Amino acid sequence: MAKQKKSPRPKAETPKGFRDYFGAEVTHRTEMLAKIAAVYHRYGFDALESSGVETVQALGKFLPDVDRPNEGVFAWQEDADSDKPGDWLALRYDLTAPLARVYAQHQNDLPKPYRRFAMGPVWRNEKPGPGRFRQFYQCDADTVGASSVAADAEICAMLADCLEEVGIERGDYIVRVNNRKVLDGMMEWVGLLDLADPSQNADRRGIAMRAIDKLDRLGFKGVQELMMDGRTDASGDHTMGAELDFVQATWINGVLGAKGQDNSETISSLRKLMVKSERGHEGVDELEMIAELLAAQGYGPDRIVIDPSVVRGLGYYTGPVFEAELTFEIKDEKGRTRNFGSVAGGGRYDDLVKRFTGQEVPATGVSIGVDRLLAALDAKGRLDKTADGPVVVTVMDKARMADYQKMVAELREAGIRAEVYLGNPKNFGNQLKYADKRGSPVAVIEGGDEHEKGVIQIKDLILGAKMAEGATLEEYKELPSQYEVPRDQLVAKVRAILDSQS
Amino acid sequence: MAKQKKSPRPKAETPKGFRDYFGAEVTHRTEMLAKIAAVYHRYGFDALESSGVETVQALGKFLPDVDRPNEGVFAWQEDADSDKPGDWLALRYDLTAPLARVYAQHQNDLPKPYRRFAMGPVWRNEKPGPGRFRQFYQCDADTVGASSVAADAEICAMLADCLEEVGIERGDYIVRVNNRKVLDGMMEWVGLLDLADPSQNADRRGIAMRAIDKLDRLGFKGVQELMMDGRTDASGDHTMGAELDFVQATWINGVLGAKGQDNSETISSLRKLMVKSERGHEGVDELEMIAELLAAQGYGPDRIVIDPSVVRGLGYYTGPVFEAELTFEIKDEKGRTRNFGSVAGGGRYDDLVKRFTGQEVPATGVSIGVDRLLAALDAKGRLDKTADGPVVVTVMDKARMADYQKMVAELREAGIRAEVYLGNPKNFGNQLKYADKRGSPVAVIEGGDEHEKGVIQIKDLILGAKMAEGATLEEYKELPSQYEVPRDQLVAKVRAILDSQS
Repeated sequence: MAKQKKSPRPKAETPKGFRDYFGAEVTHRTEMLAKIAAVYHRYGFDALESSGVETVQALGKFLPDVDRPNEGVFAWQEDADSDKPGDWLALRYDLTAPLARVYAQHQNDLPKPYRRFAMGPVWRNEKPGPGRFRQFYQCDADTVGASSVAADAEICAMLADCLEEVGIERGDYIVRVNNRKVLDGMMEWVGLLDLADPSQNADRRGIAMRAIDKLDRLGFKGVQELMMDGRTDASGDHTMGAELDFVQATWINGVLGAKGQDNSETISSLRKLMVKSERGHEGVDELEMIAELLAAQGYGPDRIVIDPSVVRGLGYYTGPVFEAELTFEIKDEKGRTRNFGSVAGGGRYDDLVKRFTGQEVPATGVSIGVDRLLAALDAKGRLDKTADGPVVVTVMDKARMADYQKMVAELREAGIRAEVYLGNPKNFGNQLKYADKRGSPVAVIEGGDEHEKGVIQIKDLILGAKMAEGATLEEYKELPSQYEVPRDQLVAKVRAILDSQS
Repeated sequence: MAKQKKSPRPKAETPKGFRDYFGAEVTHRTEMLAKIAAVYHRYGFDALESSGVETVQALGKFLPDVDRPNEGVFAWQEDADSDKPGDWLALRYDLTAPLARVYAQHQNDLPKPYRRFAMGPVWRNEKPGPGRFRQFYQCDADTVGASSVAADAEICAMLADCLEEVGIERGDYIVRVNNRKVLDGMMEWVGLLDLADPSQNADRRGIAMRAIDKLDRLGFKGVQELMMDGRTDASGDHTMGAELDFVQATWINGVLGAKGQDNSETISSLRKLMVKSERGHEGVDELEMIAELLAAQGYGPDRIVIDPSVVRGLGYYTGPVFEAELTFEIKDEKGRTRNFGSVAGGGRYDDLVKRFTGQEVPATGVSIGVDRLLAALDAKGRLDKTADGPVVVTVMDKARMADYQKMVAELREAGIRAEVYLGNPKNFGNQLKYADKRGSPVAVIEGGDEHEKGVIQIKDLILGAKMAEGATLEEYKELPSQYEVPRDQLVAKVRAILDSQS
């Protein structure tokens, strides 16, 4: 028969930049989210789940100026109604923009202040890279409607609790706190910010702020160059500088490096450095208050510390800023030792819902990088990697499937994960290979002989080492660590073996 | 100053057909999913999480034949690369199509058979209606690569376990099982199906199958009409019939109504009715085997029953089909009593990955309607509605915020959900309103007098009834159910009040 011509088969592939998560990858994340949710909840935060899809209008930033508003987001236009064009919809790119929309939409029904947490996938239409995916989890907690720094302090304490709850030991992390107002104070003193007319020197201030944001990467020397005449990197590329003089640039590095032996030393240094800036002093006062509130609750500088060198995203926030860093070292892919780095960050942003309602509503919050935290626990060997495979009841006689099903039902009723082998039972070796692939701790065997004698064979697969791929049933039965027990001792014996393995 | 002209404010709205879920709505669902996941896991199923976005090509059914392939799905085209047009991407509309893609993509690494569960949102680009949203949860378990009906039986047992685990009591649900092959046998006997040439009578067979699919709604009489000359509904619309004669149509109703006193009576009736159809007999044998396997595990007809009237989606499946129905009655929105109906369904579908690989791979699975189940538990008053609000520590003196924070820290360390009031503390009434809105069980008050005496006021808000909106602090303190205790008894007294409330 001539082959029929067919359309080509579709490719079985995830879209570029997306991936699948299997077994323990999923359950480890689920467990981590549950632990974090429990801490958020204990602090009085309420769950919120908005949908993955928002109108582009509500998300903001991505208004359809060209053909399609898909810069950075996945967006599409709804079908037109009879009389008007369809709305542009998009997948949310974070959990903060939906919070702003939710708060503006439901504010009459929400408590004030509104503490909420949210966890779920977000999507970014960006070029994927190694370890960089276009769908990933965010896990946020925010307080909307509280202007007091007590709200910021609370979030820092909660962040520390979350890290310990998921298995990061005290001493292996530090929450560092800074304040945007200190940055403003710096800009004021060097003449790059006039609070009465922020448009003045906006370009040079932008250069200076971007330079500060690169402190981690460039170090104090690089920042100093960028504050002055600019910097030429190893490749010969020149970045323009903010044209400050040497004293000003050095003073800025002095502020960034003002962390002292303890919080009170840091604060007293900062207070001296914020020479003439009211805004800067306000920022220092807030930091002092946060440190006091935290100390009263027992969160000392071994967990949470004032550190003026925290600069990531400082341009985005309006008040206190916090960042959690893991302090232990790991080996990178090239075998080099390095610090693990940041796993969470947040701060105060006071214009959350203004674009919807015109009102300024104070807000502060934190976002925990769950995938980074999982990678950190994995690197430290702190994820439970013990095989979680099911007990496998093998099938020696297809006609007696009901008996085998009865065995797994008994095991499950006792809370033991168990299954019958459901592939083609003819080749016993395949059943053993299957149990191996599943990471099964125990196999149960009941052939015709055993059935007649009223016994079963129970095999400790962990103790019994690797099963030879081609082992015959006879060879297999000769292996040690196999026990013949009466049928009615199935559950008791399996339980005993599982207990001995753990 | 003249008002600056501004672009209009964005609307704070979810897109049409989407909604937000708050507090207990989220946590009830999370808890239900966790319970179901635990049952799936105990049966040996492994978690799988694929992303929300797939290529349109991999999803199938929705290939871009017109301008945009967005019939039923949300789809968009990626930006073009330098040399080729961008891929069409879409949000998944269920969890089965991604499973097919995952199995085809990763089959060399997966155990065979592969038991997997998946839970998460899916999206449908459909006209929204009351209670019908364009994003909703699915919660599936499937076994891929097992042709044995033991796999189907296992899923039925697991479904019953899931329902009981989430709080549907035995007797309040029934899992009904039928088999597509019995339907084929019916079609063969009435001359509408020639297995050697299925294209014969395909039109009339389609009419008959659609008629059977409507049994729930039309009853036996309506189906009988549609099997014969057709049916004219109340509005005068006529639906064409399958042109069978009276004996044939009556016989079909006989099969559909063949459920007997018990499974063995049903099976013996069906065997007699499947007069000359080999396929039909095969179906009956499979049903018998399923009933036997389930009976051996203790799943009797009080939980799982063979029922030839299960017809929903029978055209889609290839073997056993199952449906879980809640049997208790609820009041609908018009106050009429009706059965709650179906909350889960599934069956065997043996061509899951064929479109990717060309191989036929047997598969069977179930999908639990989590949102329907939550609605059912809610209708029965079985969702825990006790206020889960936090203990609220009120702020009597802003300068003593650190003391209040210390109180909540102590409460949280004892595992008690607690928060400090973070709004403007000036108006004490607002603090009480806030506690009310939060469903708080207990409020803690420490003013200057108390602080001097080393005591605190602890108010049982549940016992103390509703707080008058305008109560002054003095009036409020006069209410009964308020206790003055030494500061160091904070945790003990709050705990005692919480215990007395539960």
